[in-house]
Amino acid sequence: MLNIAVLGCGRIGQMHARNIARHRRARLASVFDIDVPAAERIGQELNVPVAASIDEVLGANTVDAVLIATSTSTHADILERAVAAGKPVLCEKPIDLSLARVNQCAARIAGSRVPIMLGFVRRFDAGHRATRDAVRNGDIGALRQVVITSRDPGMPPVAYTEASGGIFRDMTIHDFDMARFILGEEPVEVFAQGSRLVEPALMDRLGDYDIVNVALRTASGKQCLINNARQAVYGYDQRVEALGATGLAMSENRRTHEAQLYKQAFTGQAAPYLNFFIERYADAFSAEIDEFVAAVEEGRAPDVGFDDGQRALLLAEAAIKSAAEGRVVRVSELG
Amino acid sequence: MLNIAVLGCGRIGQMHARNIARHRRARLASVFDIDVPAAERIGQELNVPVAASIDEVLGANTVDAVLIATSTSTHADILERAVAAGKPVLCEKPIDLSLARVNQCAARIAGSRVPIMLGFVRRFDAGHRATRDAVRNGDIGALRQVVITSRDPGMPPVAYTEASGGIFRDMTIHDFDMARFILGEEPVEVFAQGSRLVEPALMDRLGDYDIVNVALRTASGKQCLINNARQAVYGYDQRVEALGATGLAMSENRRTHEAQLYKQAFTGQAAPYLNFFIERYADAFSAEIDEFVAAVEEGRAPDVGFDDGQRALLLAEAAIKSAAEGRVVRVSELG
Amino acid sequence: MLNIAVLGCGRIGQMHARNIARHRRARLASVFDIDVPAAERIGQELNVPVAASIDEVLGANTVDAVLIATSTSTHADILERAVAAGKPVLCEKPIDLSLARVNQCAARIAGSRVPIMLGFVRRFDAGHRATRDAVRNGDIGALRQVVITSRDPGMPPVAYTEASGGIFRDMTIHDFDMARFILGEEPVEVFAQGSRLVEPALMDRLGDYDIVNVALRTASGKQCLINNARQAVYGYDQRVEALGATGLAMSENRRTHEAQLYKQAFTGQAAPYLNFFIERYADAFSAEIDEFVAAVEEGRAPDVGFDDGQRALLLAEAAIKSAAEGRVVRVSELG
Amino acid sequence: MLNIAVLGCGRIGQMHARNIARHRRARLASVFDIDVPAAERIGQELNVPVAASIDEVLGANTVDAVLIATSTSTHADILERAVAAGKPVLCEKPIDLSLARVNQCAARIAGSRVPIMLGFVRRFDAGHRATRDAVRNGDIGALRQVVITSRDPGMPPVAYTEASGGIFRDMTIHDFDMARFILGEEPVEVFAQGSRLVEPALMDRLGDYDIVNVALRTASGKQCLINNARQAVYGYDQRVEALGATGLAMSENRRTHEAQLYKQAFTGQAAPYLNFFIERYADAFSAEIDEFVAAVEEGRAPDVGFDDGQRALLLAEAAIKSAAEGRVVRVSELG
Repeated sequence: MLNIAVLGCGRIGQMHARNIARHRRARLASVFDIDVPAAERIGQELNVPVAASIDEVLGANTVDAVLIATSTSTHADILERAVAAGKPVLCEKPIDLSLARVNQCAARIAGSRVPIMLGFVRRFDAGHRATRDAVRNGDIGALRQVVITSRDPGMPPVAYTEASGGIFRDMTIHDFDMARFILGEEPVEVFAQGSRLVEPALMDRLGDYDIVNVALRTASGKQCLINNARQAVYGYDQRVEALGATGLAMSENRRTHEAQLYKQAFTGQAAPYLNFFIERYADAFSAEIDEFVAAVEEGRAPDVGFDDGQRALLLAEAAIKSAAEGRVVRVSELG
Repeated sequence: MLNIAVLGCGRIGQMHARNIARHRRARLASVFDIDVPAAERIGQELNVPVAASIDEVLGANTVDAVLIATSTSTHADILERAVAAGKPVLCEKPIDLSLARVNQCAARIAGSRVPIMLGFVRRFDAGHRATRDAVRNGDIGALRQVVITSRDPGMPPVAYTEASGGIFRDMTIHDFDMARFILGEEPVEVFAQGSRLVEPALMDRLGDYDIVNVALRTASGKQCLINNARQAVYGYDQRVEALGATGLAMSENRRTHEAQLYKQAFTGQAAPYLNFFIERYADAFSAEIDEFVAAVEEGRAPDVGFDDGQRALLLAEAAIKSAAEGRVVRVSELG
Repeated sequence: MLNIAVLGCGRIGQMHARNIARHRRARLASVFDIDVPAAERIGQELNVPVAASIDEVLGANTVDAVLIATSTSTHADILERAVAAGKPVLCEKPIDLSLARVNQCAARIAGSRVPIMLGFVRRFDAGHRATRDAVRNGDIGALRQVVITSRDPGMPPVAYTEASGGIFRDMTIHDFDMARFILGEEPVEVFAQGSRLVEPALMDRLGDYDIVNVALRTASGKQCLINNARQAVYGYDQRVEALGATGLAMSENRRTHEAQLYKQAFTGQAAPYLNFFIERYADAFSAEIDEFVAAVEEGRAPDVGFDDGQRALLLAEAAIKSAAEGRVVRVSELG
Repeated sequence: MLNIAVLGCGRIGQMHARNIARHRRARLASVFDIDVPAAERIGQELNVPVAASIDEVLGANTVDAVLIATSTSTHADILERAVAAGKPVLCEKPIDLSLARVNQCAARIAGSRVPIMLGFVRRFDAGHRATRDAVRNGDIGALRQVVITSRDPGMPPVAYTEASGGIFRDMTIHDFDMARFILGEEPVEVFAQGSRLVEPALMDRLGDYDIVNVALRTASGKQCLINNARQAVYGYDQRVEALGATGLAMSENRRTHEAQLYKQAFTGQAAPYLNFFIERYADAFSAEIDEFVAAVEEGRAPDVGFDDGQRALLLAEAAIKSAAEGRVVRVSELG
């Protein structure tokens, strides 16, 4: 049994807290949030203590590991403190919006053997993973092209968008990680293009985009094409396809249920997709906890590490530069 | 090149005439209908002579074979005359509504080596055939249960229904043939049940049904379940599934095209099914002509023979008796 | 919060205990099994007391309601005792294998206002329920025909089969309930047919069947066709379709995930179905607990009552008689 | 009846000749090819005269219109001569591999009212057209992003590839036209990227690519993403999706038939896709002839004109430049 404290009791923190509370090999040690009432609500629901400070959590013998789900700007700092305290960390993405800060954090934790896991939850989705496995197992031969479709059902709140660091750092970052997961090779070139079609006024104000596409290429010429939209009214659209020399593997969307309606004007009208990431990736969030617990118990590095968070952010930086300059950016240009 | 004359220029006769006219290994020799203007219209369209009588057709050296698409009550008579004239026959189902008449016809043509083919077109549908092949090739192991869903988009004209011989002889007869095609064994028991839900007043008047189900069983215990409806507003529904010891093979419906619409309230709303048998089985009708031409040219019995027409009608008779008496009818009871 | 004790800690009992333990509006009060180690294992896992006897459970102030998941032959007795003790009951199906015993039980609890719910879990599956709702809401017009496909992935253990009461009472009973759920009308006629194709020697010895089909008809002529197989190697096959005057509603199967493989020889090869009822109906089992808690808290009769268990068993009895006699059995014949 | 002569009796010319021969409103007037035996074979098959020269065809009173399916390098010249002779033209794409030659051709035919139609057959596919109609009819609201997947089953013969003008002019050109068809707006920016993964040695020698992706953007910011592969072993993959403010429309692939296989290891293994363009777009090729006949008979410009051929080629040129320079190319740069 691994005793995990959850830091941050917003939407994602609550979900993690509930998952840990019902996990067979984990126990929820405590919860913390600077918004005390928020922490108390979930503490009461799950019948666990509410910690008074992060220091209290990191100093407690009853806490074996921490899950960081606080606001993004605090991730790197808490991560460094947890590592210093010898507590294994499962950290929500991104590590920080600033690549410089992430690199600084990397330098500070260098040499530590405390397990650090990044919360790229999509790697734990059974369908996406089966697609990766089809690539890795040779079921589709040498990989040639990956296509990732990733669209949110709707715009986040304005305040969230303002603090998000822009679509490439906030949303596409998941797809950059998925690209690396499927490709099994590092992209060396990035081309990105953005449009302002969902909330043009807001995007103009922020210098951000709401409809983007990215083309990545590895040194061996493998391509990965990503398309994102901040709004897809038909639901959370999460697809991955991998074209290889001897076949194609494809991970499709999942519906709320499998009932269909047939009428004079149409056939096979199906149910909506699972609404958003908490529903769509519910099983994946559990599997992520499984991996974290297993890695800590086995004293090994988790499947998704600090380095993965760093590299995904690097691709986001390259995409931002590419979209601004209208040209292919080599990842090596970013130093 | 096989020179085929088409007898009967109604909807099905016209379709066959057009198919033959464009067939690579067949030529349309002539057309005939007692409704002379109907024959002339299609003759003109396809630029072929209109025969003045069936005798003229059967006596012509320019005619190698005949396709019988006249009204049902004339099938047996014309078939006998064609066989007597030595002309190979492709006869639309059913041979006759009366089993006694069919048996008489069988007796009269007994011993003849003139090829006779019955127009059970569904056997030539690529999907249904792939399902039969999966059974025959052992892809699903020993067969256990067949389920046939067969629903027309809407009621035929009242006059057609009145002359149809009832749903079991007119509509289910295709499914009885499909059952035998997939089962590869003769059904020995029949249970049938009918309801009057689409046009209850008409059905009451005719003593007929518009929603029926049939359960067949072979001597070895294999089951075949058929459901029919005279009206399925969502389109012509034609499905076959075969459950075996090591798998399931299933032939699904075909749509007019593969575009889909996704909206806030639903996903994957697809196009209507191909409307009715002329569209749904267009390729199958061509493949049926292929088989007829090949059988005649190779001097062999076609894949679907007179016997198949006779046996399907026998099952229809058993179904009628079963529905009337509310009990399983053994096919052997009908002599 | 409803404090529920779970009686019976076999596979289903354990699953219910876990569901209740993590339910937001329920609490697992205690567990009991005559196999004490089994009860202790799950008690320890979920950190709840293990009761020494059913009497202890029924007498405890800390127990608001009970869930009966013991062996079938004890259901009716425990149910009667729970009702006498004023404890609301959620009872796994069937109430008893003997219709006489069920009727006796009904007589004994007559007049009691203690809520009793039967565990027909499939009613709580989102897809099946959407199909029922499409019928009830008029989305497909007047209902005409229901088709239920219900196949288990494989034979249960021999001991289970021997004690099961036969396929109609054990397996088809779920489909009889589903039929009533979708039809919204009582079937008045039953026809059933059984084959012995999966385990013929065992079936011969038990006088049981492993491949069956049933046709039900209501007074107004609506049909419901059920097909069952004790073995479908491709997985747990659970489909419901409802044909109405203006459309078709259909509840399809659910896969473990949505990845697909495309190769030279085929396209769209998909993942296996969710393996069996515990996976397939996981969400439905939770929704069932929701309804039980809500009904008890609101002091109303649950959605699925004792009466539903009784009527499903009546249809099973009629099916057994029909299969034995090869004829339609009117439900009224069984008194 | 429109009397059409077919110039060029290669694979596509033969197909067009057969389509015209069986068309209700067209007649095949004659065929021509510089490879005389090729012309004679199809002339004999379809029972039509073989012309001795293009001049003979263009001078014949019995020829109302011509279909140009000769080798690409002759298209522009024959088109100019046909227009000079007053014969309406249906010309296979591309008009020429050289944009300069196409522009010269445009100048020469300027002012003529002879109907000219370009053979962008995919516009006539029912699924793609339904997608375009969904956009145009407002079913998905304001368009935001189009994704086109277009992959051939395998590499063409080496000689074909050498003469093809490169993948962007030969293969992507269809997708550039589809992009314009769906977008309903002109792309103003092009980004393209190519890899050499299928036949790297050949591609190196030719300076060509076999795996490419293209991102187009219109002045209003609408995006169109295209991915191409010269080899997709699972079949001819032809998909179009259109994301709008209120929905998504998607045109999926079509299979040879709708049978599926279910086994222990998988479910729903479906049949291969229709093999290549002649099968996949068979109905579209017929519909293309319909439009040509209708436009000529009604004396109006056909749906797809010379201008469409010119603009698609312009996008191909921009893509070539973009792939070479690793930057966004504005279409206006090409003059």
